[in-house]
Amino acid sequence: MGYQTENRRNLMLFTGRAHPELAAEVASTLGVRTVPTSAYDFANGEIFVRFQESVRGCDAFVLQAHSAPVNTWLMEQLIMVDALKRASAKRITVVAPFYPYARQDKKHRGREPISARLIADLFKTAGADRLMSVDLHTAQIQGFFDGPVDHLFALPLLADYIERKVDATEVTIVAPDSGRVRVAERWTDRLSCPLAIIHKRRDKDVPNQVKMFEVVGQVAGRTCVIVDDMIDTAGTITKAAEALKANGAATVIAAATHGVLSGPAIDRLKNSPISEVVLTNTLPLPADAQIDKITELSIAPLLAAAIREVFEDGSVTSLFGGDA
Amino acid sequence: MGYQTENRRNLMLFTGRAHPELAAEVASTLGVRTVPTSAYDFANGEIFVRFQESVRGCDAFVLQAHSAPVNTWLMEQLIMVDALKRASAKRITVVAPFYPYARQDKKHRGREPISARLIADLFKTAGADRLMSVDLHTAQIQGFFDGPVDHLFALPLLADYIERKVDATEVTIVAPDSGRVRVAERWTDRLSCPLAIIHKRRDKDVPNQVKMFEVVGQVAGRTCVIVDDMIDTAGTITKAAEALKANGAATVIAAATHGVLSGPAIDRLKNSPISEVVLTNTLPLPADAQIDKITELSIAPLLAAAIREVFEDGSVTSLFGGDA
Amino acid sequence: MGYQTENRRNLMLFTGRAHPELAAEVASTLGVRTVPTSAYDFANGEIFVRFQESVRGCDAFVLQAHSAPVNTWLMEQLIMVDALKRASAKRITVVAPFYPYARQDKKHRGREPISARLIADLFKTAGADRLMSVDLHTAQIQGFFDGPVDHLFALPLLADYIERKVDATEVTIVAPDSGRVRVAERWTDRLSCPLAIIHKRRDKDVPNQVKMFEVVGQVAGRTCVIVDDMIDTAGTITKAAEALKANGAATVIAAATHGVLSGPAIDRLKNSPISEVVLTNTLPLPADAQIDKITELSIAPLLAAAIREVFEDGSVTSLFGGDA
Amino acid sequence: MGYQTENRRNLMLFTGRAHPELAAEVASTLGVRTVPTSAYDFANGEIFVRFQESVRGCDAFVLQAHSAPVNTWLMEQLIMVDALKRASAKRITVVAPFYPYARQDKKHRGREPISARLIADLFKTAGADRLMSVDLHTAQIQGFFDGPVDHLFALPLLADYIERKVDATEVTIVAPDSGRVRVAERWTDRLSCPLAIIHKRRDKDVPNQVKMFEVVGQVAGRTCVIVDDMIDTAGTITKAAEALKANGAATVIAAATHGVLSGPAIDRLKNSPISEVVLTNTLPLPADAQIDKITELSIAPLLAAAIREVFEDGSVTSLFGGDA
Amino acid sequence: MGYQTENRRNLMLFTGRAHPELAAEVASTLGVRTVPTSAYDFANGEIFVRFQESVRGCDAFVLQAHSAPVNTWLMEQLIMVDALKRASAKRITVVAPFYPYARQDKKHRGREPISARLIADLFKTAGADRLMSVDLHTAQIQGFFDGPVDHLFALPLLADYIERKVDATEVTIVAPDSGRVRVAERWTDRLSCPLAIIHKRRDKDVPNQVKMFEVVGQVAGRTCVIVDDMIDTAGTITKAAEALKANGAATVIAAATHGVLSGPAIDRLKNSPISEVVLTNTLPLPADAQIDKITELSIAPLLAAAIREVFEDGSVTSLFGGDA
Amino acid sequence: MGYQTENRRNLMLFTGRAHPELAAEVASTLGVRTVPTSAYDFANGEIFVRFQESVRGCDAFVLQAHSAPVNTWLMEQLIMVDALKRASAKRITVVAPFYPYARQDKKHRGREPISARLIADLFKTAGADRLMSVDLHTAQIQGFFDGPVDHLFALPLLADYIERKVDATEVTIVAPDSGRVRVAERWTDRLSCPLAIIHKRRDKDVPNQVKMFEVVGQVAGRTCVIVDDMIDTAGTITKAAEALKANGAATVIAAATHGVLSGPAIDRLKNSPISEVVLTNTLPLPADAQIDKITELSIAPLLAAAIREVFEDGSVTSLFGGDA
Repeated sequence: MGYQTENRRNLMLFTGRAHPELAAEVASTLGVRTVPTSAYDFANGEIFVRFQESVRGCDAFVLQAHSAPVNTWLMEQLIMVDALKRASAKRITVVAPFYPYARQDKKHRGREPISARLIADLFKTAGADRLMSVDLHTAQIQGFFDGPVDHLFALPLLADYIERKVDATEVTIVAPDSGRVRVAERWTDRLSCPLAIIHKRRDKDVPNQVKMFEVVGQVAGRTCVIVDDMIDTAGTITKAAEALKANGAATVIAAATHGVLSGPAIDRLKNSPISEVVLTNTLPLPADAQIDKITELSIAPLLAAAIREVFEDGSVTSLFGGDA
Repeated sequence: MGYQTENRRNLMLFTGRAHPELAAEVASTLGVRTVPTSAYDFANGEIFVRFQESVRGCDAFVLQAHSAPVNTWLMEQLIMVDALKRASAKRITVVAPFYPYARQDKKHRGREPISARLIADLFKTAGADRLMSVDLHTAQIQGFFDGPVDHLFALPLLADYIERKVDATEVTIVAPDSGRVRVAERWTDRLSCPLAIIHKRRDKDVPNQVKMFEVVGQVAGRTCVIVDDMIDTAGTITKAAEALKANGAATVIAAATHGVLSGPAIDRLKNSPISEVVLTNTLPLPADAQIDKITELSIAPLLAAAIREVFEDGSVTSLFGGDA
Repeated sequence: MGYQTENRRNLMLFTGRAHPELAAEVASTLGVRTVPTSAYDFANGEIFVRFQESVRGCDAFVLQAHSAPVNTWLMEQLIMVDALKRASAKRITVVAPFYPYARQDKKHRGREPISARLIADLFKTAGADRLMSVDLHTAQIQGFFDGPVDHLFALPLLADYIERKVDATEVTIVAPDSGRVRVAERWTDRLSCPLAIIHKRRDKDVPNQVKMFEVVGQVAGRTCVIVDDMIDTAGTITKAAEALKANGAATVIAAATHGVLSGPAIDRLKNSPISEVVLTNTLPLPADAQIDKITELSIAPLLAAAIREVFEDGSVTSLFGGDA
Repeated sequence: MGYQTENRRNLMLFTGRAHPELAAEVASTLGVRTVPTSAYDFANGEIFVRFQESVRGCDAFVLQAHSAPVNTWLMEQLIMVDALKRASAKRITVVAPFYPYARQDKKHRGREPISARLIADLFKTAGADRLMSVDLHTAQIQGFFDGPVDHLFALPLLADYIERKVDATEVTIVAPDSGRVRVAERWTDRLSCPLAIIHKRRDKDVPNQVKMFEVVGQVAGRTCVIVDDMIDTAGTITKAAEALKANGAATVIAAATHGVLSGPAIDRLKNSPISEVVLTNTLPLPADAQIDKITELSIAPLLAAAIREVFEDGSVTSLFGGDA
Repeated sequence: MGYQTENRRNLMLFTGRAHPELAAEVASTLGVRTVPTSAYDFANGEIFVRFQESVRGCDAFVLQAHSAPVNTWLMEQLIMVDALKRASAKRITVVAPFYPYARQDKKHRGREPISARLIADLFKTAGADRLMSVDLHTAQIQGFFDGPVDHLFALPLLADYIERKVDATEVTIVAPDSGRVRVAERWTDRLSCPLAIIHKRRDKDVPNQVKMFEVVGQVAGRTCVIVDDMIDTAGTITKAAEALKANGAATVIAAATHGVLSGPAIDRLKNSPISEVVLTNTLPLPADAQIDKITELSIAPLLAAAIREVFEDGSVTSLFGGDA
Repeated sequence: MGYQTENRRNLMLFTGRAHPELAAEVASTLGVRTVPTSAYDFANGEIFVRFQESVRGCDAFVLQAHSAPVNTWLMEQLIMVDALKRASAKRITVVAPFYPYARQDKKHRGREPISARLIADLFKTAGADRLMSVDLHTAQIQGFFDGPVDHLFALPLLADYIERKVDATEVTIVAPDSGRVRVAERWTDRLSCPLAIIHKRRDKDVPNQVKMFEVVGQVAGRTCVIVDDMIDTAGTITKAAEALKANGAATVIAAATHGVLSGPAIDRLKNSPISEVVLTNTLPLPADAQIDKITELSIAPLLAAAIREVFEDGSVTSLFGGDA
């Protein structure tokens, strides 16, 4: 008198409206299509989302790029997760290649929010079971989410490209500020090369103002690769490039995972002594960023591979040579 | 050897950037000032907030108007609440005169979100202990929040104005669609007057399309007051006005609490047979809405009175003649 | 050295003691039997429940009808869910065809509970993962539960019956009060017919008392079908019927999903001008309700179909022609 | 520009409809009145509750006796707590002198609920911050609630009475079954007297059936006081009394905190060799229990004293001579 | 265009460092190996754990024995559970054959913790979905965990051994104190034999001190089997043995599930009139406990059988002849 | 008929057994005594705690130092918090000057725990409302706790001492590894002096091994102050000191907040070229650490000041010159 059925798993890929090209590329690599979805803004900015086919019991991956307007895309993703939860998706993984509000990961002073933790809690509240992201601003953000986080690294992708372009023995890796030294060290581990850092020296009698960008380490005659997780307004990185040139650097290249490129970024990069800027497409490149200096590498194969491992209970750690 | 102190309560009023004029008016009525706050957008749209004075132990009221861009103002309010929670505010009341996403209060069809519930959960997650709102789209939204909700009504404010302007014996209250009949009945209770409704008649062979706006009830020669909780694009209300005129209505007035007035609203209202539109300032009036036809009444005295009662453990119910 | 096993799903249907006939009919449609269960009351009214076979890993559907004594049947269902959770059921769906306390879905005045939200939270706390219900008093109740809710509609069942019995071109759908207009509009959409409503007109000088039941809309000579989600004491619906007759209605039929039929209901219906009352069996019909005027349609096929779709990850939305 | 106010605490006592006499006695001892409350049943058994005065900011104590029909009184109390939470009571203490479902405090066999834990979670979910109860069936139930539990003991009240009535040197305390030995030992500690227990001896070849009620310990010629936390159907206690008499006991007295007295209890007690039954009024005495043999002591002074200590941040522990 | 995969279940057994021999025996019975794990203490006592192979999607059983130093082994297990949760294990069962802090299952006096509840909550917080334990100190501890608890009994194992060694008709089961009478009664049910208990008689004028260990029941000439859930410092059980001998017992045997055996336990047992102590290996036997008097029975087959049933959705209840 | 009382706040300071001297110093600064507490270990390592006076309604601060054996002191603090919660403390602040498991604040590789987040959740689960700590290993740990965290800095204390001892113009601040550069920069901001870092250069062909400790920056002839949050085994800091000397440093001083000093730390420091080691007493100094080279500064005044501000709703931010 029993009633049994087989229990197959069904991967479904969903995308917000911020960066459909990336989703399409991930889908194509996985051999699926993104689930047809109605999504639009009401006149006052409220977002409506509806999936056009049944999602009951699926293993849902919800990809959104958190470019500007970031709050809109964040709410859209939260609303998608809510709709999936209420439509009986079995498991929901938020894929946020660029984690929004990652820089507000602590109180710099009293009476500030910790927005990066808030974001993790909002995802959880909406119904997310898991998160996937690329190069979190600080690795501790993994700990903000109460559940599994797959933290992917673009370093192999970026470093492969750099190694093909320059002579590794001439490279010095440069951390553009004190918060990025640990990331820079991952690069020196990989390339077995020296390190330099840009030290923002302040005058204690003039609070909150940088006296000079001091280069700590040897850079004269070297191919300097400034590494960072993101380039936003490009202020820090172009100041760093100038300081390197002033200290005799032969060439300056910039490599970063996330091309936020907001406000004056493109102009600053154009006018800077940086010869090449290497980025991935975790965020859609602004229209005015289609310049020769900028090289865009696709993060889609990495995302697709990680999604496949998660879906098939494989090892994401193995994607990185046993390193995460 | 003990260490004791008195336990006074301290009201602090905070405001987001959406509608500072309303906050200022509430503050002035309460005899306080809004707490000085740094708030700005980063170039990519991320919001930063910091309070400029200690909020430890305060009874915080965080006022935000949810006008367009609604997701931005929502995130700003969530971030303010997070910052208050982490800065040890004792109790946090979210004041959202116009509750965002209130119309998505149920799944109209399968695989939709229930965004109004999601919003309540997001507020809770960020750290809100209580909510205060005016004329929720449906009263059930109170039940979406796991905690006290003070639900205020603008009806006395609007109805007082109407009663001063027209002869109540000539009034027929009109519900512009089936979802608003209950609200309309509150008006007929107050004015002891008849009711009419606009019935959107559909053809079952042509799905999702309205065949005609049928007036149910007697309106010929009457002063018709169409009542609604909000006017967004003004499509429904202007269509209703035309149907009323076509059925012989003498005058058509519109009264609503929330003036969303997005997209074509102003043009539609201008060109409609509606002679006057009465609104409150729960939302900031768009610049192009400064037209003669629109009368704006201030909701600030009501909000201030409710905040005072909440702060002083008085009765908010008593604000409404024992009715909520 | 691994140890793997296949992962089959196993549907098990459980029933409380309120309406075993309905459960038996659902079981039979699904081709299963309800799980043998010991359930009895201790002398002081405490309920004991124990399942007589292993439920480990099953996909449990727990059906209970919330007829009087409603608190008893509610507690029984909560206790069943607790027992299932602790016995390692994999997923638990509460099936409550008539959602208890649905009418207390908001605070009508201050210092009232929102019992319908409380009920949703109690189910969640006991261990329910999902809810299934039929014709919720207001659709917003879906949003009270933090998880998937399958909201089924009896309208096709009831309307099919009506359409077979009367000439649709002669029908006017009547909402018995302002809160039911939206439901009535669903009927007019389906039958492409006109709408009327009963307006409870009050005198503002005599609070809380209805001055008259005013018929808004044309009903003279029509076949009036009063539609409601439930008939409890039948006061509203019989008063409405009288008003319709007084306004010249040819015939009055009542159609409702839930036959609560408590207190004076049967007598009132018998003595009313209503010629036929069409109900479903979401609740067991009281013994004295076996009268000719009342037609009972079975909801079991709908419940069984929905349970099957949920179990097999099919689409419940598709059960309703793409409409929920 | 600040706005401050004093922060006084305000005790409010609420009562369900199960045992208003007890609430009135507690109120009178505290020098307050119970808060006027509308509470009634709808025809189908659903309960409605509304408080008739503002409860904002109060320190609420919600007293309910969990006599039959226990599920009704439980739901009423949950609904009262929900209404208090939503009406902004500052702190809510559930006072349940007789904890409902206390006997289902573990799974006796597989696939049973642990209803006593469920009850604790239901109270918490509804909004209770704290619990107060008298003589829990097992002390571990304190641990079922995630928050403070004030566990009061009636032993001093009952034992004072017994000591006044009999010669303590002639007393033997009797545990009526193996689960009550620990409670019996509290009595022997207090009276410095010997212990006996009734051992339900079973035949391993006849499962679930008691072979005989074996008296373990010396009872011949003694004044036997059978002690228990509750007397429900009085089956165990009257069987125990017979066994004691059969073993030569001079007198048999029964003392218990909770007089559930359901079903055949009164008849059994009347016809038993027990000369006196001492109870408290944690539950209302059934009408047929007004018999000479039964002595009722009032628990109200203890409840009132505990409520006062809780309200004034005094020590409840001190109420019991440093013992709880 | 879909992407589906089979959904197999994969059992993985993990062990902490407290009692690897027990884990190895369980693994061998199940036909698996324990998952290779790096676990070590930093110099300051902080524990590090890492699994050496992918655990994604597995059904994890995490076995730890809670011997001294109990806090270390507890934290290790919590950290293992956290690592499993973050590494996407599908389901996590904590296997704690001896539940730590079980004796602090209630407040004996005011201002004490209920550590046994705290432990349940810590497991839940770390990420445990289920618990498995053997002979909980009180069965109510099951109710401390918000989820399924498989509560196993060593009684069949111990009683089988005893029955093979002694003549059951000569046995009297002895409860060493009032808290253990219920356990003792389970033994008398099984062996159809009489019961005695040791009553700690106190003098009410000398608080907190035992006046004498009084034997309640007939023991002269009998083979007394003192039964308990655990033997810790062996104070109670050896005092009980002496009292039994003083009352004429022929032989005294002790049987307990958990051999904590801390402090003076071994010396006390050696010097006591107890002829044999029967224990299981839920805890590792201290080195000095390898004495002739102590017989150790393996609990591994029971644990392995229960894990298998849980994994395969079989019935754990059936392991005990329908009794739990 | 009301019953009101004043609402005073009452600070109570509790201490675990790890570092009573620190608690005594804090208490004395605050003008209170620590609450008398019974705390001891059972023979198997389980901890028992009971407070000897009523704590009802108090504002509790629970200080514990997380020195070795760290798991014991952690469990003791959790148990104290549980006891406070159940005894009705009004608010509970965990004071953990050295946050345990802070170094495991992220997954360094796959299948690791994030123990620092787990610790935050355990505190929350036990009942902590707030945390207070000094110099968290990474500031992001603030975000691990769902509530207010008061993060105090020892930098002013340590830097004042250094400034009094050496000529600031001759100082170079040295980060001993890449993770500490941000902390070092706080020092250079304060002293307006240059920065150097020790770069652990690795050979990519020899994984996980450091090729050399490379000094990046100018140190010849300088007074090098190596700054860190903690000194555990002192391996990194002594290797750094040797590298600095090899690069011509004139003097090497070490300054750190937390003196873990486990294992070989004291010997290494003794034998190193470091001339002075400046620490605070967030952890008790091991007995063998009473050597001339080590200077211990008291953190008690900072903790006492912060506790006072928290208790009195003052500003903790103001303790740091507006900087946190």
